[in-house]
Amino acid sequence: MESDSLRSPKFMRQTLRYVTYGDISAKAANMLAQPEVSDFFTRLIQRVSPKSYNQALAEVTVSQKFLENFSGDQVRFLARSFAVPGNHLGQQSHGYRWPYGPVAIVTPFNFPLEIPLLQLMGALYMGNKPILKVDSKVSIVMEQMLRLLHECGLPKEDADFINTDGITMNRFLLKANPQMTLFTGSSRVAEKLAADLKGRVKLEDAGFDWKILGPDVQEVDYVAWVCDQDAYACSGQKCSAQSILFMHENWASSGLISKMKDLAGRRKLEDLTIGPVLTVTTETMREHIEKLLEIPGAKLLFGGEPLENHSIPKVYGALQPTAVFVPIREILKDYNFELVTREIFGPFQIITDYKQDELQMVLDACERMHAHLTAALVSNDPLFLQDVLGRSVNGTTYVGIRARTTGAPQNHWFGPAGDPRGAGIGTPEAIKLVWSCHREIIFDIGPLPTHWELPPPT
Amino acid sequence: MESDSLRSPKFMRQTLRYVTYGDISAKAANMLAQPEVSDFFTRLIQRVSPKSYNQALAEVTVSQKFLENFSGDQVRFLARSFAVPGNHLGQQSHGYRWPYGPVAIVTPFNFPLEIPLLQLMGALYMGNKPILKVDSKVSIVMEQMLRLLHECGLPKEDADFINTDGITMNRFLLKANPQMTLFTGSSRVAEKLAADLKGRVKLEDAGFDWKILGPDVQEVDYVAWVCDQDAYACSGQKCSAQSILFMHENWASSGLISKMKDLAGRRKLEDLTIGPVLTVTTETMREHIEKLLEIPGAKLLFGGEPLENHSIPKVYGALQPTAVFVPIREILKDYNFELVTREIFGPFQIITDYKQDELQMVLDACERMHAHLTAALVSNDPLFLQDVLGRSVNGTTYVGIRARTTGAPQNHWFGPAGDPRGAGIGTPEAIKLVWSCHREIIFDIGPLPTHWELPPPT
Amino acid sequence: MESDSLRSPKFMRQTLRYVTYGDISAKAANMLAQPEVSDFFTRLIQRVSPKSYNQALAEVTVSQKFLENFSGDQVRFLARSFAVPGNHLGQQSHGYRWPYGPVAIVTPFNFPLEIPLLQLMGALYMGNKPILKVDSKVSIVMEQMLRLLHECGLPKEDADFINTDGITMNRFLLKANPQMTLFTGSSRVAEKLAADLKGRVKLEDAGFDWKILGPDVQEVDYVAWVCDQDAYACSGQKCSAQSILFMHENWASSGLISKMKDLAGRRKLEDLTIGPVLTVTTETMREHIEKLLEIPGAKLLFGGEPLENHSIPKVYGALQPTAVFVPIREILKDYNFELVTREIFGPFQIITDYKQDELQMVLDACERMHAHLTAALVSNDPLFLQDVLGRSVNGTTYVGIRARTTGAPQNHWFGPAGDPRGAGIGTPEAIKLVWSCHREIIFDIGPLPTHWELPPPT
Amino acid sequence: MESDSLRSPKFMRQTLRYVTYGDISAKAANMLAQPEVSDFFTRLIQRVSPKSYNQALAEVTVSQKFLENFSGDQVRFLARSFAVPGNHLGQQSHGYRWPYGPVAIVTPFNFPLEIPLLQLMGALYMGNKPILKVDSKVSIVMEQMLRLLHECGLPKEDADFINTDGITMNRFLLKANPQMTLFTGSSRVAEKLAADLKGRVKLEDAGFDWKILGPDVQEVDYVAWVCDQDAYACSGQKCSAQSILFMHENWASSGLISKMKDLAGRRKLEDLTIGPVLTVTTETMREHIEKLLEIPGAKLLFGGEPLENHSIPKVYGALQPTAVFVPIREILKDYNFELVTREIFGPFQIITDYKQDELQMVLDACERMHAHLTAALVSNDPLFLQDVLGRSVNGTTYVGIRARTTGAPQNHWFGPAGDPRGAGIGTPEAIKLVWSCHREIIFDIGPLPTHWELPPPT
Repeated sequence: MESDSLRSPKFMRQTLRYVTYGDISAKAANMLAQPEVSDFFTRLIQRVSPKSYNQALAEVTVSQKFLENFSGDQVRFLARSFAVPGNHLGQQSHGYRWPYGPVAIVTPFNFPLEIPLLQLMGALYMGNKPILKVDSKVSIVMEQMLRLLHECGLPKEDADFINTDGITMNRFLLKANPQMTLFTGSSRVAEKLAADLKGRVKLEDAGFDWKILGPDVQEVDYVAWVCDQDAYACSGQKCSAQSILFMHENWASSGLISKMKDLAGRRKLEDLTIGPVLTVTTETMREHIEKLLEIPGAKLLFGGEPLENHSIPKVYGALQPTAVFVPIREILKDYNFELVTREIFGPFQIITDYKQDELQMVLDACERMHAHLTAALVSNDPLFLQDVLGRSVNGTTYVGIRARTTGAPQNHWFGPAGDPRGAGIGTPEAIKLVWSCHREIIFDIGPLPTHWELPPPT
Repeated sequence: MESDSLRSPKFMRQTLRYVTYGDISAKAANMLAQPEVSDFFTRLIQRVSPKSYNQALAEVTVSQKFLENFSGDQVRFLARSFAVPGNHLGQQSHGYRWPYGPVAIVTPFNFPLEIPLLQLMGALYMGNKPILKVDSKVSIVMEQMLRLLHECGLPKEDADFINTDGITMNRFLLKANPQMTLFTGSSRVAEKLAADLKGRVKLEDAGFDWKILGPDVQEVDYVAWVCDQDAYACSGQKCSAQSILFMHENWASSGLISKMKDLAGRRKLEDLTIGPVLTVTTETMREHIEKLLEIPGAKLLFGGEPLENHSIPKVYGALQPTAVFVPIREILKDYNFELVTREIFGPFQIITDYKQDELQMVLDACERMHAHLTAALVSNDPLFLQDVLGRSVNGTTYVGIRARTTGAPQNHWFGPAGDPRGAGIGTPEAIKLVWSCHREIIFDIGPLPTHWELPPPT
Repeated sequence: MESDSLRSPKFMRQTLRYVTYGDISAKAANMLAQPEVSDFFTRLIQRVSPKSYNQALAEVTVSQKFLENFSGDQVRFLARSFAVPGNHLGQQSHGYRWPYGPVAIVTPFNFPLEIPLLQLMGALYMGNKPILKVDSKVSIVMEQMLRLLHECGLPKEDADFINTDGITMNRFLLKANPQMTLFTGSSRVAEKLAADLKGRVKLEDAGFDWKILGPDVQEVDYVAWVCDQDAYACSGQKCSAQSILFMHENWASSGLISKMKDLAGRRKLEDLTIGPVLTVTTETMREHIEKLLEIPGAKLLFGGEPLENHSIPKVYGALQPTAVFVPIREILKDYNFELVTREIFGPFQIITDYKQDELQMVLDACERMHAHLTAALVSNDPLFLQDVLGRSVNGTTYVGIRARTTGAPQNHWFGPAGDPRGAGIGTPEAIKLVWSCHREIIFDIGPLPTHWELPPPT
Repeated sequence: MESDSLRSPKFMRQTLRYVTYGDISAKAANMLAQPEVSDFFTRLIQRVSPKSYNQALAEVTVSQKFLENFSGDQVRFLARSFAVPGNHLGQQSHGYRWPYGPVAIVTPFNFPLEIPLLQLMGALYMGNKPILKVDSKVSIVMEQMLRLLHECGLPKEDADFINTDGITMNRFLLKANPQMTLFTGSSRVAEKLAADLKGRVKLEDAGFDWKILGPDVQEVDYVAWVCDQDAYACSGQKCSAQSILFMHENWASSGLISKMKDLAGRRKLEDLTIGPVLTVTTETMREHIEKLLEIPGAKLLFGGEPLENHSIPKVYGALQPTAVFVPIREILKDYNFELVTREIFGPFQIITDYKQDELQMVLDACERMHAHLTAALVSNDPLFLQDVLGRSVNGTTYVGIRARTTGAPQNHWFGPAGDPRGAGIGTPEAIKLVWSCHREIIFDIGPLPTHWELPPPT
């Protein structure tokens, strides 16, 4: 825990490194594409993070594709710079993406492989020297992945890996003072870190993510299925999980709620399609539901009961997939708003509806939520989409009849919007934005004008 | 000072606005190109900020060119987004540069027109609603410019202008909590703001800017002139002013120092080529010089005396252009380093030299400086340039025999590097980075696969 | 007419030129924004090219905005290059947009100002030495504009202007052999030039432009008005003019045709909203109509008669705005297709309709047309748009309920697609593609590896 | 040979295809990285194209890296489009890279794997339907590679492969009339094709490639080795082979020529470091040498004799690595120039020298050469480099002390400059430029202005 371990801003300016990392990525992508390796990591994820085989496999697949994306010359292509002619012969300005030097990465329990791997590689691709801390409950996954990366050629001195609790890590960061710290996790810790590190951070914190169903009702079975996955896959423990659903009145007679209830009923503990909640106890969730049901017009749509026949320890939560209806006019009242939009990191969502002339109320509610991570706008009506998109700010926003809030892949940006500290993950744009800064180098080599004469001072 | 005045994230999403701002810029550029308007602003700047006519005129010229750059369709071109095909028919991901919404701008005394104008327009171009505070000693310049902009079509409700002191502004920002605050000014205030606003800032603070003369001695008259301008124009009150000069031993016999002394001697109070220092008193500067001269081997190269025959009030400084030599080995000693690299925002520089095999010491010194704004590398030796550039991080770095540290125009990036909070100014890249964030919108309109069937839950 | 006049590939590599052209553009944009200058050019266009005041004014406005777009530093920004790290220290590859050197521009009668000005400036911006020939009937407009440009600082030796007929110009081009020739005009001449110059051309030839009305009927008055403008403004003498209209059966009862007939009836010779046709005689057009009416099911919808009470010479055409209906099944027959899709460069269009299950026939017809310039798809149905866009190739394609085929501004690309010889006009992308080529310069300055040893030969 | 086989412009508009091609590339890259597969293709190349193992292996390696580069999502990233806001709400213009549809590829004997594979995949990545013809002497290599690609998932109907002679292929192209034909090969055929196909071509033809040694003499052993490889590897049968060397007078006493002679002497038939010339007979080359030696001041530097002890058939050439010196003033004479700059596609080069004040003569010579493919500028003098680069146009230009003319990898552009028909190969920029065109789609979905009223006609 010596701060010098981070101090090496001269690190990795050699061109060759870009080529090496293309090779490492190609090899690691190929290893992770082997069925036995993929299965190993999928089951390892399941051992520490309660999710179904397919949900865990999705992490491995996204990681594998990400590594493929930065094979060959694609790492050096990330370092692409630009140049513009200057004011006179011999002058030219160059804009580079430059590494920060020593950086830190802190990632949470719910995606033990995907989040730390993608951010770690992004930091390395751009030429930084990262130290990585993964939530200690799940860090074994990344520990195994680092061994795989070393096998594929990652030099051991390029990245540091630390196993510790959050408080110690906070002390470490304050002492080591890295040039940049990427934090993925709870809003509370994010805000504290931002102040502690005086803003030298990029953040991807949790969000109270919304979905709006537009006026054009269609493909109800499909929409119900997407709602079920968005709200309850991984027992709702994704930062992109659907927290609130706004239904246009036209959906009232579509049977959507009843279909969602049926789908929720398919989930079972045996295959972890529903399972333990790591950061909220059953009791806390049930108290929250009770409070919500005191709001006039509120009602329990389905769920609400504890899971049965299980050995989940009391420190964790165990709740059926649950939905509570609250009228939109009640949500907007000042004394209800904070309660209704409290994020429960578990299998729980709020459902409400709105009339044709109440869209403004929906947008007001969305704007008042404090984090703006993912959102979904289920409609194929172009004028409706245009209107809502133009008046909202969520970072990763899915629109169209197939819109979802979860399941972001490696091929598009994932991250919040509206905050200068917001991080992204995985795409070339995200890597460049999070893991490098602009540096301008202006070449001005002459020659001097033929008859240059000393000008007066100014 | 009602925080609601900032709260309008829905602001300016209408396409038309981009076109309007192209028109405003074209008109304002044209007005500012009129000799009488240009002269008016140049003299107005001189009234409040002590600099020569040509230095003040440069601000007006840069501002005028900047406005030309964003004429016509160029504002909407800043809003250029991109799209990539998705995983199935009907899916496509779009990456937008999205406005933050309510933002704040705080700018210093030394560039009363250029800094606030460029940042204000950048904020508006990207669709934000800015509130602007300029240092109250000089805010009359921007107050006049806003009137010009209103005349050119800027809607009065688009931008707020506030006249106040720094303490009140700090309270205002804490209460209003803008999505982003751009601060240009001292490092001390910058760090405080960053903590107060939990990192929702972009900063361009002062720097202890270095220049290195390489082994290839040439064009000595020209280099001496550039050094004189870099160190003493605007009486050294530019954040890019040359604070320290590292001379390769080959320059010892070139007469460079003696030429610099002669050039410094040309500066006079009458035309403000030397003048009042607004933030450091004469006494403070002289005490600093005394302390430096106690270092073994240190010596006064020229200057060091107070200006004479003037009516500059005691609260300001009045010092001859001054250079103090300190041996490089002394600079690097822990108990000297902080003293030597203390930024004096006035007509003052440190000069040192290094032998062929002491380059590493120079680079160590540069790396230990805490801010990394501008730098200059005076050499046309490609291997030397490659070596030093690869081991340094300053933001705006001029290299080549004509390299300078000051005088950045509007056509290339100006700003620090190595810090995720670092701001840039003026170029399309700077505007997009500082005044907008990434928002990803994924269209997923279908159609569904022909025989879609409900999958099992995951 | 000495070929040496074109031979100067070394031309204009000096950085300074980019800055000069930004100044010229700003000045010219400002002059053209003066009402008296704008009015002068509008009326001058009207004297030689028969169009209404507003249509002629649109040319001036587009030209003025284009010049604004390339004010200040925007010309040098066009020359932006990129760089990527190489395989070892000291190696870096740079991709430049490089001028061709000597180039030629040949433009037609129908846009006497906009087309030659935008292409000429594009050629100059990218560093070429152009020779310009405008159709001699209208070249006085560009001759006056060149004088304005000279006044704004355009060096007289930078661009050559030639007044001659097409045959002489062809001989000139064969002898001078410019590196690139931009031709805008008829398909016949375009194909001949392409063969004569062995493909060293970029072409923007006429097109048989289509509009498809989708299944969602709405805003009928608006759509009728756009159809009237697309087909008959400038008496149909735009290369983007609507040549054929495919109506979905749902529009049958909307009254669209009757509204279009009423709108066509408003056009009159006095204000040139209908006027002389320069390249097709009245007789030719009437014969064409007669032949079409022999097709089974064909009928005259409106127009078809010569204009009356005029002094238009016999060598020109003078026809009422005319529409002929032909059934879609007849259009697709081999012996009808060529006749129906013959381009009449005058106030004439084909109208047809299609049933819900006949969309494939519409697309087959569009694909068989030989030029693919503009197109319009009038619908807000996202799945319909997606389907038709994915199966068509026209270059500039407007979609949505406000879609049109004509009136392209300077802010988006205008040009054909599907042909490697296709030119674009006006936007940064068009200028870079048409007026420059890729040049890759790989810097490989060393140093050599420390212990480099001679390898065996390969 | 039915032209309908090419007619499918609707081909491959489905999003999914982009993803499929990322998978195919990843799998093929991985297969080609297996030592036994790599060795198989290397030896197969050697069987048909006379080059050393390492030269053949380089083709395989470049191909493998290229496939890695377009793994995962990188094919869909090639299809990245952009969008810009329009003039009113609901309007937005999108710029796409659009496929041509049916295209053809014709490639030569000297790179039996690299050239056809990279161009074929480029065509497929961008969504075209290609037909590929490889020189029939070597087409077995690509035939085997296609089987590998099919194994990796390439749908058999996506690409056609034709084995035929050039005359038949020419007839085929004229009948089938593909939207675009990529031709790599001799200038003579290229020019004929360009006229036959009326310019619907992209060309990469042979070049008379130059190297200039600048005034700063250094690393003579290294430079001699690079010259040897550039001129004689693959027996000079690369389109980028060094055809002429211009030496600054400072190199006279460096021993460079003598070192080059020694290096040439190491080449031997057994390992194919020198070998058969496929398109020029021994006799033809010797006659050419004789003619050159008649020029006043010309002399044979080394080589010039036929190879001995071999069974190379008479229809091929067999010559020692050869260099002929010709004085620069003689080269420039009109009656010598064509002779001296005649491209001999074999192990042959011209060497000349120039004095400090004769640089203009060197540049004149380079400009008069008709093709501008590769070039090298061996110098680390920044002002010299700037001067020569600014006055030359060759496409792929290496500069610096390590500059070469051959051995272009997949990570930077390779292709000629200065010609609108010029093709590039391998990089994302080359693929996009050669295999797609710009298509602009402008969405204009409304809504109409609230109180829209019918305007008068224009």
